[in-house]
Amino acid sequence: MKKFLKTTSLLLMCALLLSACGNLQNSSLSSGGGDTSKSTVQTTSSSDSSSYDVLLSGGKYKTSPISGITAADNSNQFNSRSFESGLMSLSKKQFSTNSYVFQEGQVLSATTVTKWLARKSKKNSIGLNPASNGSKDENKRAPMYFQQMLEEDYLTKQNGKYKLAGMSIGIAMNKVDYYQKKQYGATYKTTISTEQQKEQGEKIAQEVVKRLRADKQVGNIPIVVGLYSVAPEDTLVGGTYFQYAISKSDTLGNWSTLGYKNQMLPTVNGESAINSGDSDAFTNFKDNIQDYFPNLSGVTAEAHYDGTDLKSMDVTINTQFDGLAQITSFTQFVQQSASKYLPSGADLDINIQTVDEQQAVVTRNNGKFYSHVYNAD
Amino acid sequence: MKKFLKTTSLLLMCALLLSACGNLQNSSLSSGGGDTSKSTVQTTSSSDSSSYDVLLSGGKYKTSPISGITAADNSNQFNSRSFESGLMSLSKKQFSTNSYVFQEGQVLSATTVTKWLARKSKKNSIGLNPASNGSKDENKRAPMYFQQMLEEDYLTKQNGKYKLAGMSIGIAMNKVDYYQKKQYGATYKTTISTEQQKEQGEKIAQEVVKRLRADKQVGNIPIVVGLYSVAPEDTLVGGTYFQYAISKSDTLGNWSTLGYKNQMLPTVNGESAINSGDSDAFTNFKDNIQDYFPNLSGVTAEAHYDGTDLKSMDVTINTQFDGLAQITSFTQFVQQSASKYLPSGADLDINIQTVDEQQAVVTRNNGKFYSHVYNAD
Repeated sequence: MKKFLKTTSLLLMCALLLSACGNLQNSSLSSGGGDTSKSTVQTTSSSDSSSYDVLLSGGKYKTSPISGITAADNSNQFNSRSFESGLMSLSKKQFSTNSYVFQEGQVLSATTVTKWLARKSKKNSIGLNPASNGSKDENKRAPMYFQQMLEEDYLTKQNGKYKLAGMSIGIAMNKVDYYQKKQYGATYKTTISTEQQKEQGEKIAQEVVKRLRADKQVGNIPIVVGLYSVAPEDTLVGGTYFQYAISKSDTLGNWSTLGYKNQMLPTVNGESAINSGDSDAFTNFKDNIQDYFPNLSGVTAEAHYDGTDLKSMDVTINTQFDGLAQITSFTQFVQQSASKYLPSGADLDINIQTVDEQQAVVTRNNGKFYSHVYNAD
Repeated sequence: MKKFLKTTSLLLMCALLLSACGNLQNSSLSSGGGDTSKSTVQTTSSSDSSSYDVLLSGGKYKTSPISGITAADNSNQFNSRSFESGLMSLSKKQFSTNSYVFQEGQVLSATTVTKWLARKSKKNSIGLNPASNGSKDENKRAPMYFQQMLEEDYLTKQNGKYKLAGMSIGIAMNKVDYYQKKQYGATYKTTISTEQQKEQGEKIAQEVVKRLRADKQVGNIPIVVGLYSVAPEDTLVGGTYFQYAISKSDTLGNWSTLGYKNQMLPTVNGESAINSGDSDAFTNFKDNIQDYFPNLSGVTAEAHYDGTDLKSMDVTINTQFDGLAQITSFTQFVQQSASKYLPSGADLDINIQTVDEQQAVVTRNNGKFYSHVYNAD
């Protein structure tokens, strides 16, 4: 599994925001306040207009207090980054990167969110997961639906000061709920149907927005809410957002369905390809590089789709060699082969690594290739 | 020490050859022979005219059989990559990248080089390290001078076939020889003076060229010979080539001195800066990013000099955070600060990492910035 850890969620990453990839050479540090001393508000700004500037409040980057708080155990490593980048991507539908700056969520506290993620009970009347029905049976118990929550704040400058003007909320819903019948015991699982996931997610979203609206800091600002399906532990691909709504007043607004899908290539367990043209192209790419460089331990990809349209591909190549001349020559060759065989419209993120270490990276964004070989050994 | 492992030898890497960095989008796979079947000779070719094309003989990349063979134990991790890239850099003085293609050394065998690297003895008359004088005393024993050897082949196309037309030989000379007085015992060391290193290296180089000339495959082709000083285990920077010669006939030719030096920044152990302007610039850069992002565990650089001219800087930044929004924002900010504070003429290779994993990379080559955030978590 280790080899897949490096290749998450390019689709969302590249539809994204804080120029994760790209040339930032015209970036500058701009002072947000009227005063240039460190105690005022500043932003890091990017030359890329499709990216948000980031607020450095009091001269420092501020993290969200609720980051990383989860309801149940889920060791699937793919989720956290796409949960984050996917919400930023949805935010762009409402909050223009020209007018808003980004800050990690500062409204919700860790205490509050910990309670919201817990089961409803006598002690915890505000829990958003269902009260226990007493059963420990996989099919009879009430599963934990609501797994994690994310807040992103979007601010605008009003009379020289940055003020909260928009918010995005990510609600991560389990597809599988993992649990123990007794402490330190074996792990069991309750599978949640797509319909239940959707129904419960919508209910939770409605309640969350209602509670946020009661907070004076939030008031009537627009709130983007995304429902995210957490990938089960045994899948090799990351989770995705499946629907979103934009609340502009008290009500939640209509839900819009999203068609994001991820698939491992070559396909596994007899799964059929989302798009057989892409799958064949990847096989040709893989065969070509393995022909010339036989000492490869693995060539896999996570393909990111919107419907049946390939948006991007994260490729991981594990080599058994790490000599500089060989890695450099191989990197050249991988780029040539990618350009020749892989679908031309898709963004690419190709990581070349040994068991120990990253060796080289080849990317293609908007048709432009870039490669870099690490000097390390 | 781990944090420094990622930052070796950018000076040589970037003076270099097989487009380690850079845009290869016009690369193509060209057939070298008259025939396009896999059994003929092909090359991977780069659009960058300062880089060598690489020969794929019989459709495969060929490694050198002598790669990695060493005389004594030396666990300094910086040496192997700069030993390799430095020799390629010297090769360009004699073998034009337009006329020659590169292949890892195929003439010298592992058996031969193992014997050459050993001490001269009754059983091993061809050993190039001195015969033991019986002493185990650090100051009286005859140290192992000759640590490692590297062969690089340069070929040209003659009547439709690639033929060996030039060769480069790297000779790695110890600055400190590590040894045990008894098996599994404590490690002792004999320090070798710069004069001894030079004198012994020149003698060994002469003998190696003489032996190569006797090989029919080599005959009278030009041979570039570089003498490399292996960095001792306790230094934080890599070794460098200190002189080279180009042999065009039986004799070795004149030696040319090289002024390469590496230095860690901030300087350690009260060492004075090679160039105080560069050292101050780095301190300003470091202070600026630590001001805005206080949770950094370390910001260091290996500066690569030719005399007192800064050629490049490998910067390593260790962060305690790995959230996507924060890493992305930090990467933006690092690029802004590098552009503002670091000496404008130097190439940059900035690695942003947590203890576990590479998080992002920012590079500047010939004045052009590029950044990439890994999607992994």
